[in-house]
Order: sequence, then C-alpha cells, then structure tokens
Amino acid sequence: MPELRKDAIIERWVLIAPERSQRPHDVVPEAAPESSSAADACPFCEHRESMTTNEVLAYRDDLDETANGPGWRVRVVPNKYPAICPAGTIDNGLEQSVSADNIFTTTLPGHGRHEVIIESPEHYTRFSQLTDSQVVDILRAYRDRLAAIREEGESTAVMLFKNMGARAGASLEHLHSQLIAMPVVPIQLAEEVAAAKTYLQRTDRCIFCDLIAHETAEKTRLLVETEHFTAFCPYASRMPGETWIVPRRHAPSFDSISSSEIADLASLMRQILTSIETFLDIPAYNYVIHTSPFDKSGGNHYHWHIEIMPAVSHLAGFELGGGFYINALTPEDAADILRTQIVRLT
Amino acid sequence: MPELRKDAIIERWVLIAPERSQRPHDVVPEAAPESSSAADACPFCEHRESMTTNEVLAYRDDLDETANGPGWRVRVVPNKYPAICPAGTIDNGLEQSVSADNIFTTTLPGHGRHEVIIESPEHYTRFSQLTDSQVVDILRAYRDRLAAIREEGESTAVMLFKNMGARAGASLEHLHSQLIAMPVVPIQLAEEVAAAKTYLQRTDRCIFCDLIAHETAEKTRLLVETEHFTAFCPYASRMPGETWIVPRRHAPSFDSISSSEIADLASLMRQILTSIETFLDIPAYNYVIHTSPFDKSGGNHYHWHIEIMPAVSHLAGFELGGGFYINALTPEDAADILRTQIVRLT
Repeated sequence: MPELRKDAIIERWVLIAPERSQRPHDVVPEAAPESSSAADACPFCEHRESMTTNEVLAYRDDLDETANGPGWRVRVVPNKYPAICPAGTIDNGLEQSVSADNIFTTTLPGHGRHEVIIESPEHYTRFSQLTDSQVVDILRAYRDRLAAIREEGESTAVMLFKNMGARAGASLEHLHSQLIAMPVVPIQLAEEVAAAKTYLQRTDRCIFCDLIAHETAEKTRLLVETEHFTAFCPYASRMPGETWIVPRRHAPSFDSISSSEIADLASLMRQILTSIETFLDIPAYNYVIHTSPFDKSGGNHYHWHIEIMPAVSHLAGFELGGGFYINALTPEDAADILRTQIVRLT
Repeated sequence: MPELRKDAIIERWVLIAPERSQRPHDVVPEAAPESSSAADACPFCEHRESMTTNEVLAYRDDLDETANGPGWRVRVVPNKYPAICPAGTIDNGLEQSVSADNIFTTTLPGHGRHEVIIESPEHYTRFSQLTDSQVVDILRAYRDRLAAIREEGESTAVMLFKNMGARAGASLEHLHSQLIAMPVVPIQLAEEVAAAKTYLQRTDRCIFCDLIAHETAEKTRLLVETEHFTAFCPYASRMPGETWIVPRRHAPSFDSISSSEIADLASLMRQILTSIETFLDIPAYNYVIHTSPFDKSGGNHYHWHIEIMPAVSHLAGFELGGGFYINALTPEDAADILRTQIVRLT
C-alpha cells in the first residue's frame, strides 16, 4: 500500500506508491533524443577553444601551453549565455539599485557567476566514458572555483550541478557541468541549513552525521561505504534511483575537500553514475552539490553532500504545485539493484 | 541584464534572463508526442464506464440514468492506480501504525483519496475544445468533491490539478484532472500559508488581496479583470507564460466559491488556457488549485487561487536542487502576448 515518507532533513513529504508503475499510458511519451552529429560543431571540443569565452581555469599537462589553446584536460569558461553576470560587466542603470519598493516586486541585479565546467577534451557524452583520473580533475575544478569565488567575496551561495540528457535540461551533449554563484540563498538550501541549525541546537549533533549513522546501521538503503563517503538511496526518495553521497567527515563546505577525499569520491561517483546510466538504463539525470552558503546563515551546522536525481518521469502538477513527489520505486528496491551493480564494477 | 526576482508570497527567487533564449542547442529535444489512436480504447470515454472504478460523482441531464452508465457530462472516479488510498481499504499491518521511530524514517500510511475528474464524455484532448458550460461542470465537480472530503474529516489537505501533455506528466490524453487528498500539508502550501499568516499579523491585511491591488495598479503584468477574478503573470514567474488567477473576494478555500463565481471563472479559464494552447503554442502545462489546509495551520489568512504553469522547458539541476528557477521570458512580455489574445477571444 502507498506510504507517505518525510525527508530526513526538511518538511518535504513523498508518496512511495509502487502500485503506480502499473498504470496504463496512451499519451505517447516524448521520444528519447537521437544522438546528434553535434561533435562536428561542438564548441566544447578541444581545438575549438575560440568558440567559447576565455577560460577562468584549465588543467594542462604541459604548463607551457597557452591559455585558451588545446592541451587541456578540464576547462572552465564563463557561460556564453549567462543566467547571471559578474558585477560591473553590464551597466544599464539597474546595476546600482537593489530595488524593493514594495514587497511584491523585490528585485536584485542578477550579479554573480555562471560558469561551465567542460569535463573532457574529447566529445564524450556519458559520465561512464570518463576515467577516475578525469573525474578527479572535474572535482578539483569544482573545488578550485568554489574557493576562488568564496575568496572574491561577492556571492552568497554557489550551486554546482550537472544536467545530463534533454529530459534533465541539458542543451549541449558534450559532458559538462555548471556553476552558478548568486547573491541570494536558494529556498531549498535555506530550508536545509535552517533544519540543520535547529537540530544542532536541540541535540548538539549534526543531522547529516546522524543520518549517515542511521543509514549505515539500517543497511536496507545503503549502497556503499568507502574510506571517506557513504552513499545511499534516501528514505524519502523523490524519484526512482535517487542517491545521496555524504562525506563521513563533518564539513559544511565542499571546498574543504582534501585530495584523498577527491580521489575516493571520483571513483565512487564513476561507479554510481555508471550503474545508473548502464544498469538502471537512465541516461538523463541531475546531480547537485549542496554546500553551505557564504553568508551568516551558513555555518558549522551544515554538512555538504551530493544529491543525484534520475530524470525518469516528467514532473507534474503535484510536484510543481506542492513540492510534493510521487515515486513508484521504493528506495529499498532501488538500493538492491544499484548495490549489486556497484559491487560488480569495483 | 539578468534580474533576480523574489516571489510575492514565499522566499523563492527566480532569475529572469531573456539572454538565455539565444543559447545554442545540440541535444536533440525530445520529440513532441504524436497524437495516438488512443480513443479506440480510452477508459475515460462515454460507454466505457465499466473500464473505470465506480463513480463517486457524476452530473447527468437525465436524473433517471443509472450510475456508471452513459449520459454523464462530467464524471469523478477513484484513480484505478492510486497514489493514496482511503483508510480501511487495504489492511496490511502498516494501516494502524503512525510510525516515527526516529526522525530519519518518519512515515504515515498513505491514507487519503486519489480521484480523476473526467472532463468530457467525448475524447477531447485540448482544454480549448470545451465550452464554457462544460468548464462550469468541471469546476462544480472540484467544489463538490472538495466539500465532501472536508465533510468526511479524514484528510488534512487537498490538491486539485491538471497535467496536460506528456511533458507535463500526463499519462492519458482524454481531458481529465486529478484530486489528491492527503494527511499532510505539502511543503510549498505550508510555506504560502505561513507567509500569509505572518503578513496578516504584521499588517492586518491579506497578502493576496494586497497583491491583486498591486498588480491591478501596476498593469504591466495584468491579463484581465473580470467581475470576480484577477489574472496576471506573477512578477517572479518561474516559467514563460506562468499565470495566476486570484479571486477578488477574499476566501481561504476553493469550496466556498459561488455559482456566479464559477460561471465567471469558467469563461476566464477557457480564454486563458485557449490563449496558452493556441497562441503561445504551449500544448503541455499544469494548473494547480491552491486551497487552504483543513487543519489548524489553515485559516482566514490564506486566499485560494489557481497557478497555471506552462511546461516549456525541462526542469534542470538548478530547479530541482535549489527550488530556484531560470526563466527566459519576462512576465511583462508574456502578459503583452497573452493580453492581446484574451481580448480577441472575448
């Protein structure tokens, strides 16, 4: 029978309803996109560096190589079509104003950074094509950019995320992820941070540290424990195969990650995402790195982590209008499937 | 330049970034679904009543017609593949338990109602095919079911919503909407109700009543004012063409709607949805009726309304991971387009 489950951290409820998977469909599902011949003109491929904006970071084997030329392993460039821009780059009058003439039109200039992390010089389109050492480079780039933006002191929160596949919102197929640094804290992050703070004040412990301990002891949703990380399908999974990767060392912010943690995480992410792509056959998904805001709302009570959200079904009125999800695969069943595959890969 | 806007009611920020509409794509978008020949076997068509569960409500011209036979105009049936079930219908042990052995596994039995409102006896697939009088029947069915479930006293909140088109989560194309009655308050409704309460305590006024006054005076996002309703594109629209319809009479709950308000709303909804379907050429969308919870969190501070959310682009990591939206069409531009079309229809 259907079961309502509350998220471990925030007041978000999910209906776990396996019976729903048997319902009939006559609306023809949107066809999965065909592989395009996009590699011919892809602006993210090596030797087409002039098609992007100038890089803000790149890792090259040969330190004598010129910036914005070939020879890179991972490359970070400002988004050519930014959702948000650095302060001072455009001056149109709104620039100086933080306008809130009344509560119904609170506005801020869209100041921040919107960057693209290009994850391979080759035209790779699946995470499973990457090697562990390429994933290490990607995670280092996340860390280095997050630390640089913190240092810069002009943003309040940073979201690091990957949209993989059309159904998950990707517009270019060449493997990439994105960074958005913004002057406000996204509502869901604000809720998580507030919940962690309340829990700390009440118990003197971190809610995420306790969650790891709970899932490790409980085992039914646990995927794998490595030296530095615990991966599990959350109790109130919003979608089939949802997976959280949480560092075992308490740390509010992703940019405090160590080199040995990066090596461990790279291997783990490759295993989990390969399992999702290959064995669950879910080619579209999002992952988001949740990391503490830079402003005073952040603090030692938060615990950074990664949430992987497979894009299996389209969100409907229920999810959009209520922030309420229906999931037809129990996280216990999803964990059973994923666990087997992850073991085979290791 | 991009602009950050905060929702009028809750702490949700949206990036309005028209520049984003120019970005290139090489991921082939999922093809729009072809019209299927589903009418041949559609369980929602007249004369196939035996293919659904037994109706809980139907409007018939001839009162002598038998229940679950033909002759109906609108018909409400329990969902055959329910996400949530009435108490006592299934007994599997979980039934009696409200389990919360620790905060990480808070669960409730999925008790409630999941119903389908079948909106026409004919195999209609577009809202624009309906007449005003058919929309009146649909809205009456919403009101009558909401009132009956309130009377029953077993649910805490009800969501009434339509998923139109595959991209918006529909699985059957025959025009229908859904009702889910549940024992908890969805997180987004809880936030809205709390914000309205805080505003009332601070100002002694309703935040939605003030919002109507603001949008009516401001005019740039206003679509139309009728005798009983105000329709506008909200300042922090999450998606292109997002539209809210708010009753001018303060009322917390949809089921207090009067017959003359229903007649007015039916005509308005038909005009707006026809404009979105036909002139914006957006065949997929969701609408959700936001109505006050039945429990003590609800109260006179809330103000029911309808939010229409066109499903133009797929949600990405940004939206899913942060509750943060990027919208490439300003609500002022969307209102300009929609306003012209609505006037032509009237």
